[in-house]
Formats: sequence, structure tokens, C-alpha cells
Amino acid sequence: MRNLPISTEMINTHTRVEMLDVTDLVQKHVRKAAVSDGFVIVYNPHTSSAVTINENADPDVKSDLLTKLEKLVPQIENYYQHDEGNSDAHVKTALLGNSVTVLIEGGRLVLGRWQGIYFCEFDGPRERRMMVKIVDLSPPQS
Amino acid sequence: MRNLPISTEMINTHTRVEMLDVTDLVQKHVRKAAVSDGFVIVYNPHTSSAVTINENADPDVKSDLLTKLEKLVPQIENYYQHDEGNSDAHVKTALLGNSVTVLIEGGRLVLGRWQGIYFCEFDGPRERRMMVKIVDLSPPQS
Amino acid sequence: MRNLPISTEMINTHTRVEMLDVTDLVQKHVRKAAVSDGFVIVYNPHTSSAVTINENADPDVKSDLLTKLEKLVPQIENYYQHDEGNSDAHVKTALLGNSVTVLIEGGRLVLGRWQGIYFCEFDGPRERRMMVKIVDLSPPQS
Repeated sequence: MRNLPISTEMINTHTRVEMLDVTDLVQKHVRKAAVSDGFVIVYNPHTSSAVTINENADPDVKSDLLTKLEKLVPQIENYYQHDEGNSDAHVKTALLGNSVTVLIEGGRLVLGRWQGIYFCEFDGPRERRMMVKIVDLSPPQS
Repeated sequence: MRNLPISTEMINTHTRVEMLDVTDLVQKHVRKAAVSDGFVIVYNPHTSSAVTINENADPDVKSDLLTKLEKLVPQIENYYQHDEGNSDAHVKTALLGNSVTVLIEGGRLVLGRWQGIYFCEFDGPRERRMMVKIVDLSPPQS
Repeated sequence: MRNLPISTEMINTHTRVEMLDVTDLVQKHVRKAAVSDGFVIVYNPHTSSAVTINENADPDVKSDLLTKLEKLVPQIENYYQHDEGNSDAHVKTALLGNSVTVLIEGGRLVLGRWQGIYFCEFDGPRERRMMVKIVDLSPPQS
């Protein structure tokens, strides 16, 4: 077991609301760290973007998810007091969450067949950061 | 501290939408691993089911939760594009989350008096998998 | 690396629905433990309160979030069966989640500039508990 430093990735988003597949990016860090067993914490340090895990096959799942979130939490509500016009983004972040934890086994992310890791922008376009902390539980090399 | 392999449990669900109490199943793994201190990551590798923690006493809490989720995210919406008819399940998974982390102390799960761990099916009935990764933080035995 | 015991904080809430900033409380435990690298699991052992991360600057974000949650999940619905009148609180807990994981580097919580950790009461006022488990990944001192 070794302590591995936090890696930070810059993520450029292109529209107000967007889900970006960051699975390969996270897998790249796992490979580079050469960790066989453990887990990774993918952490979003912003309050109007989130990280989640969902389907990586049909892109309609992603757009249906974003459309439904928009219907539940529209950008404008007459009762919002916060004057930046992004209260909806803060609510969506609370609903989806700031981080995900994914297991690592045999040097690879343990994801289900249809699972991908997504960075979720709710108030873009912006330059965002995403943190990747790999926790190494591999037995010491002899 | 030792590295413990991931355990996988098969979960059979019986209806389209269902919450199954898996607390005893997770506790069984903790007991078997004989870990005194640490935590467990309960991970759902599917994109239309989830894992959550909620009340284990009155079963009405469970049905109220599922009914409310159904009202917020009904199975059919005229704007859904994904053609498998389960976009709602993907949304519910995003809202509830893919994993929970529960602390372990004195060889037992540290849950509140009314807390149980639930596997949440949103597109059943199916045979599902659930992963249990115990992270052992116990001091080494002398 | 050492195993650190779970710390429990008592949290007094003052109204039915409330978000309390507990960032300093968590940071205090990190400082006291003198852990340079690792992460902290902040765990809520109740089923009608939650823990989340959101904006720590404009208090309107907090009230907009709580108002929106109230609109989505009002306290009373004619279909609720649970007879304690707090089914909404259980739903909100499921949506926001029972715990957050925050990274530690250089002895400090790694939070984004605008992020704070919040204990979310959905069925108060009550005396609540909040658990703080610090996982130390610091290299051993020579």
C-alpha cells in the first residue's frame, strides 16, 4: 500500500447542461498508478456540476435523463431568491451527488457492462476540475 | 490490514420496482471477513437499479418512497427517446445512487437504529449482481 | 497509516427542514487527528436527515434548494401510507444521500472554493448524531 497523490483533470464543458463520459480518463489514471486492487474516488469540487454513473451505450439515455431533470428542476422558478440564475444547477448537483466511488480489481475499474462514469455540467459552458484519488489496497510486492 | 477480494451476490428481483433489504447479507460478509474496523462499499453494477439506505421498520416507508419516485419519474413520458421503455429506471438510479459506504466498528456495520441497506430494482424482474468490498482498517494482530 | 476511531457529533436542529454547515466541525476532526493524506467519510445514521455538499456563500442557495425539494416532495400526499407524517423526509434523505466522502491533503479537507458540507434536517427539530470517520493514508513517519 502506498499513498498516491490526488490527480486533477481539467474538463471543458460546451453547453449549459451536459454529461461527459470520463470513464477512459479515470481508467487512464488507474493504469498509470499501476494499482491492482483498491478503489477510486472521483470528486467534483464545484457546486453546480456533479459526477454520476449511468448507461454508456445508447446516448438517448443521457438526453432522457437531462430532459427529465430539466422538467423536475427547471432553470426558472418564481420563488428562487439566488440572483445568479443557477439555483436549478445547485439542486441538480444535490440530487446527483459530488462524487462516485468505483472499485479496482486486477488493475482495472470494476464497472458493470453498461456503466460509464459521467461528469455532469449543469451551469456551463465552463472550465471545470475533476479530482481522482486512487486508494491502493494492493498487497506489498515481495 | 489485508486486501480482501470483492464478493458478488446474486439478487433476484420479483417485480418492476422493488426495494430489497440486504443488510443481513452485507453483515454476513463483514462477519465472515472477521474485520473489526473499517468500512464496506456496497456497489450496484447496473444502470437501472440502485443501492440506498432507509428505514427498516415500517414497510409503508418503502412503498411511500417508491410511489413518490413513480410520481416524480413515471415510466412513460412523451419526450423519452430511449426505446427500451426504461428511461425512468435510469433516472431513478441517478437520483438514488450506485453505491453506499457503511462504517464497520467492533466487527459490525455501524448503522443507525432504523437504518437498513436496500437494493432498489427499477426495471425488474431480473437477476442482478451486488458487489461487497470490505476495506479492513484493523490494526495488525500481534 | 493508523486506524482512527469513529467520532460522533451531536447536532441540534431547530426547525422541521434545515441545512446546517458542518464544514468547520469536520475540519476540526481532521486537524485533531493530524492526518496529512487520506479522506473522511461523514455519515448520517438517521433515515429522515441527510448529508450533502453545496454552496457555502449565498444563503439563498440553501433556501432555494430546500424550497425546491419541498415543491417536489411536499410533506403531505394523499397516497402516503406511513402514519408518522414524515414520508417526505425519508424520500428527501434517499435523494440527497446518507454520507459524503471528502479528500484530505496536506492536513486539510480538499473542498472546492464554494463548497461546504451540510447536515440536512428533514423532520426536525431533533437532536441528531453525525459520524466522522477519518481514513489515514499518510506514509508512516520515519
